[in-house]
Parts: sequence; C-alpha cells; structure tokens
Amino acid sequence: MTDPLITLTTDFGYGSAYVAVMKGVILGINPDARLLDLSHRIPPQDVRHAAYFLRTAIPYFPRDAIHVIVVDPGVGTERSLLYVEIGPHRLLAPDNGCWTDLARAVGEPSTIIRLAEPRYWRPEISATFHGRDILAPVAAHLSRGLDARLLGPPAREWVRLEAPALTLGADRLVGEVMFIDDFGNLLTNVPGEAFFAWWDRSVRITVAGHDVRRRVRTYGEAEPGTLVALVSSVGMLEVAVSQGNAARRLGARIGAPVEVTILP
Amino acid sequence: MTDPLITLTTDFGYGSAYVAVMKGVILGINPDARLLDLSHRIPPQDVRHAAYFLRTAIPYFPRDAIHVIVVDPGVGTERSLLYVEIGPHRLLAPDNGCWTDLARAVGEPSTIIRLAEPRYWRPEISATFHGRDILAPVAAHLSRGLDARLLGPPAREWVRLEAPALTLGADRLVGEVMFIDDFGNLLTNVPGEAFFAWWDRSVRITVAGHDVRRRVRTYGEAEPGTLVALVSSVGMLEVAVSQGNAARRLGARIGAPVEVTILP
Amino acid sequence: MTDPLITLTTDFGYGSAYVAVMKGVILGINPDARLLDLSHRIPPQDVRHAAYFLRTAIPYFPRDAIHVIVVDPGVGTERSLLYVEIGPHRLLAPDNGCWTDLARAVGEPSTIIRLAEPRYWRPEISATFHGRDILAPVAAHLSRGLDARLLGPPAREWVRLEAPALTLGADRLVGEVMFIDDFGNLLTNVPGEAFFAWWDRSVRITVAGHDVRRRVRTYGEAEPGTLVALVSSVGMLEVAVSQGNAARRLGARIGAPVEVTILP
Repeated sequence: MTDPLITLTTDFGYGSAYVAVMKGVILGINPDARLLDLSHRIPPQDVRHAAYFLRTAIPYFPRDAIHVIVVDPGVGTERSLLYVEIGPHRLLAPDNGCWTDLARAVGEPSTIIRLAEPRYWRPEISATFHGRDILAPVAAHLSRGLDARLLGPPAREWVRLEAPALTLGADRLVGEVMFIDDFGNLLTNVPGEAFFAWWDRSVRITVAGHDVRRRVRTYGEAEPGTLVALVSSVGMLEVAVSQGNAARRLGARIGAPVEVTILP
Repeated sequence: MTDPLITLTTDFGYGSAYVAVMKGVILGINPDARLLDLSHRIPPQDVRHAAYFLRTAIPYFPRDAIHVIVVDPGVGTERSLLYVEIGPHRLLAPDNGCWTDLARAVGEPSTIIRLAEPRYWRPEISATFHGRDILAPVAAHLSRGLDARLLGPPAREWVRLEAPALTLGADRLVGEVMFIDDFGNLLTNVPGEAFFAWWDRSVRITVAGHDVRRRVRTYGEAEPGTLVALVSSVGMLEVAVSQGNAARRLGARIGAPVEVTILP
Repeated sequence: MTDPLITLTTDFGYGSAYVAVMKGVILGINPDARLLDLSHRIPPQDVRHAAYFLRTAIPYFPRDAIHVIVVDPGVGTERSLLYVEIGPHRLLAPDNGCWTDLARAVGEPSTIIRLAEPRYWRPEISATFHGRDILAPVAAHLSRGLDARLLGPPAREWVRLEAPALTLGADRLVGEVMFIDDFGNLLTNVPGEAFFAWWDRSVRITVAGHDVRRRVRTYGEAEPGTLVALVSSVGMLEVAVSQGNAARRLGARIGAPVEVTILP
C-alpha cells in the first residue's frame, strides 16, 4: 500500500527552521508519511497569493493527499483552524479564506471542521506557531487514518475571500492581475475564452496602463523581448515578455487593472 | 518497515548542482533511502546560523533519522568530519561546532566518532566537496545499517561554539539577536520566562538601539506595522513587526544587542 | 521493491504553483512515484545553465531514475520533446540541447525518442505548459513500467549545444567561465590536469580581466577574502574568494574569458 502523502505550503521561506520543524513533528507521529513540498515561498502573510496558488495546484493532486497550508497572519488570535474536504481533496488551513477560491473553482466543500480537540495537538501550544503545534500533528494523525470528525465540531461559518472584480461586457473585458510568477508573467482573471472569441477582431489590450500590442498562442512565437498577450496554462489572459520579465518591464503588481476593448 | 530517513542541511543554495549531486550519491548506495531537505539556504559558511537552525529543528525529529549537515568553511583543511549521537539523534557534520548548541539544549552526545575509514567514502576525495565524497556515502551506508563504530575512532576533542553573551540581572536582561527568520523577525537568546516574569512591570526594551514599546502574546494582537516584543515559538524573546519586517525596519543584524530593564 | 524515482529540474522558481502542479499530475498517474527536487532555480530559459547542471548532477544517480527537465523557451512552438537514454540514465526534456553536454561527458545516447503518442499525455495540451501536459504524465507512465518505445518514433535529429571555446596550448590555456554557483565561485572549462601540470611553474592566471595571484588546493588554505585559483570538485579550474564571493568581487559572468599562461 502506498504511504500516505502530506503536502506543505507555507510562507516560511527556506532560511529558517520552521519548515524543518513541521517535517520533524509529522514524522515523529507518523514515520511512514511521505512529505512533499509544494512551496515555502508564498509571500509573507499573503492570503490572496496562497489562494491563487492552492486553486491552481490542488486540483491536480490525487485523492487522499493531505494538504497543510500555513499562511497565517492571524496566528494566536481568535481565528480558527479548519479541516476542509473539497471533492477528493483534504486541506488543513487557517480560517482566512485561503481555500475558498479553490472551492469556487472545483465545488463547494463537503466537510468543514473547526479544529478543537487538543488530544491531536502537541501538548503545549505556542502563540505564534500553530503550524508546528496544531496543523502538523493533526495532519500526521489524519495520515494514520484518524477519522476527521474527531478533530472538532462542524464549522458553521468561515472567512470567504471576495472574488476580484471582473466585468465581461459585449465589447469590453475588465479584470485585474491575480498573480505574478517567477518569470514575471502576469496572470489575470480575464477568461481565455473571451480573449479567443475576439481573436479575429481588432482589440486594444492594456495592463497597468501599458498597451500590449501583440497577441500570440505561445511565448516563442514572438521575438525575445516582445510584450505579448496570450492565454495562460490555466485558461486565463496572461501578459508576458518573450524570454523576459513583464512584471519588471511594466512595473505591474498584483491588483493592476487589465482591460480588453474591441476597437471600432 | 519504514525506509530509512536522511535529511540534508547545507549552505549550497538551489542554483547549483551540489545538492542534487549529494542526493544522487546517497541513492546510488541506498536506493531505498528517503531524502528530506531541511534547508539549503544556510548563509554561506555561517556556522552560527547552522547551529541555531539545528538546535531548533533536530529535536523534533524521530529516532534514527540521519542528519547530514554541510556548512563547511574548512573543507579540505585538517578539520575532521564527525558522526555524533545526541540522545536519539544522529548527525554527520564537519567539526566546526555546528552541533554543540544542539547538545547544550538537549544533552551531551553519547558518541562522537571521527570519520577515518575510507572504505565507506567515494574512491576519490576532492579537496572542496566532502559533502559528496565523504558525508553522503557515509550517510547512505549508515542508512543501510552499518555500525557507526566502523566509521573511525572515537573523537577525543572537538570544536565547541561559544554560547553568546547573556546577562540575567535582578532588573536587567542583556542578550543578543541570535537569528533572523524570513519574515524579518528577530530571535534573541533572552529567555521568555524572564520576559513573562516582568509582564506586569513597566519595562524598557531596546534592540539595536531602538525602543520596542509594545508587548504582545502574538503578532495579530497589534495593528499591522507595529513593532512588538513577544515570546517566540522556541520560548525566547522575539522582536517583530506585525505583518512587517523588523530586521529591515530596525536595520538589525545577528549579534545586535538586546536589553530589557525594569523602569523605576 | 523500491518505488520508482522521478527527479525534477526546472526554471520555475518556488513562488508559483508550476512545480506543485507537475507533482500533482505525476502522483495522479502513479501514486507510488518518489519525487525528488533537483533544482527549480535554473535561471529562466537558460539552456546552457541547465546543460551544465545536468552534466554535473545526473552521472551520480542510480540506474532507472527518470529525470524530467523543464527549461523550455520554445514551449508551444515546433520544437520536439525527447526521451533520451544515456548509459543508465533516462531523461525527458525539450529538444534544445540541454542534455548534449551530459552525453559529451558520459557517452552517446543509446535511445532518443520524439514524444508523439498523445495517449500518454493529458487530454488537453496547453500552448505554454508542456511540463504539466506532456512531460509529467509521460514520466509517470514510464515509472509504472511503460516501454519507452511506445512514446513515439526514434528521433532522427536533435539540437546539440556547441562546446564552449577551449584552447590548450603548450604554454597557454584559454577557456571561459561555464557556471557560477551560489557561493559566487567561478567554474571554468579549463581542465584541472593542465592546471596541476604547471603547479611548479610560474604562471599568470586571469579571469574577466583580473589577475588571480594565489593557487591553492582548497579554499581554507588562504586567508578569508583571498582570491584563489584551484581545481573544482568536478576537476576543472575554479576561481573563488575564500569565504567570499568571486563573481561579485570580479563582476564576472558566465562566458567571461579565463587564461593561464606560463611566465618566461
């Protein structure tokens, strides 16, 4: 039988021992757990970035993986920690909305439990590191087959991230930059179908106040250095510089406005 | 039976092939070894950073894991390489003191062996990469059940890192910044109990010449941007900026002085 | 039996979900696959860097590991994707020459197949993320025992990276900086044997226009801060600063000229 899989997504970075500590805690409870790093480079306390990350990555994972997310600006305050089942996916995360974009994309959760049973936590709970003290041990116990209903009561309410603004008009699409990857590509919330539907029309595309004059199917179609618009691998409008960095070129940030208009 | 676990902690970074090479060497000798990255972002040759990292992370790991540490400014010189057992923990590391803070925290080592038996090394030993040529193959052989006493003779002496200065007075605590994490939080060597003991008193807290005016139990208690003092998840005085970066704000570095005094 | 090993080498960085997505796709097809990160910090689209990385790392890996490489400036254009067997090593990579330095080092490939059988791909192929859509699922199927000959026809031609310029004269060696590691060490293509052969002669060593006055066997022989020439752990001339950063000190980049001349 395949050993149980636990993935880790945090904003801890790689310079400190926090990630290593969580790995040690998990393996101390379940030495057979297979640990998989998804990312530890979520920008500090950036719940929106985490939400986009999870919505993009989690759907590809097989049934029964346990996904631990620690992007937790509210650690030690009254915010809850949650166990969430969305389709075949199982998440452990702070109640800050980081998983609600995923649910919007793949379907509403079947189970949401508020972690309340200290029997499955470390004996002492710090005020600043619930990843170590609560989420890691709970993940380890789940990976040993613990019934999630023993973790606490069903949650009655939870934080939802608002969907970013999006206007889909007859001759005008308005959205925003949702994510910037390590290449500096700008991923937006404008659906690729809308963009493709106007493929044969003259359009004006602007991002962060700059015109994007070239539409392509893939980066390599344009000369290196060209600013291009295309449909990203997740099916949304993307703005990139072929073999370059669009975010740097345009000085664009997450939240920057994106607009596509049909020219008369 | 659970496959044996080998963890890796280095200052190699992620851009070069050094980490990958060590993984290949280990798996070439023991294809069943489970490899776990702890960090490859120890600052180059920074033995103090490695010491703090190991002291923080290793105690959480289960019995029998083999921890390989390659932060090795003395590679190729006369410095020894050591196998060390501290309680249930097994380490392979250069003899530069990187493990002595861990021993100070969890107990003196029961075994220290100087690696001297080339039978368990790669056939050719370079002058600059003993992680590949000695530590990785030795870890792989240990993970296959090799008796550590075959690795070489007991070490008679070894390098110890000095404990950083700490003064615990009746109305004054003086220590220093020991570590800065990726959030920019300043971790000090001033014990949290001392700090808590004065919770109801008026105190002055200074770090790197700056006053820290707010004491909290956790980051989220203060408005974002507030400079706060709290007890860290490892039980020491910590200085942080809520949802911000204290190291950058204060221009503080490792070694910066920290002082807590009771106000009259 | 040991679970099959799949390694990942990409230029994706750690901030986006691309690496996580590939891991999810692989585990969705083969939950027993063991995943191993080699590096995700290949500089964006830098095929030469990837080539040096692979040539350095892959030879250390055991038989039957499947190495997936995604450094792919041509994604979505007419470039092929290849399955390559070089000795005991199995690679999946874009046809951009990233593996030909490895072949030059360890022997010509016995098998090169052009991936052409969509049955082993994801059902929909994006224009920008063939790592997810083709390479990851093919790796997963191979790890389950799929015969590689089913992936497509033998490739008849492929891209080869040119070897960088190297002149080995009777009293003069001229090469270039091939790679810069995270310590700032400059790795060159000048063979270490040639350098050692002149160990007892007076020589002049220049890199990027700077004289390197000190020859050592290892970093620690020189005072911290000294600029030194030595033979690297892969047997080539290396220029380093003891406990410092030679690339930063000299302002040297990949491709910078390196010259060793015997003084009269």
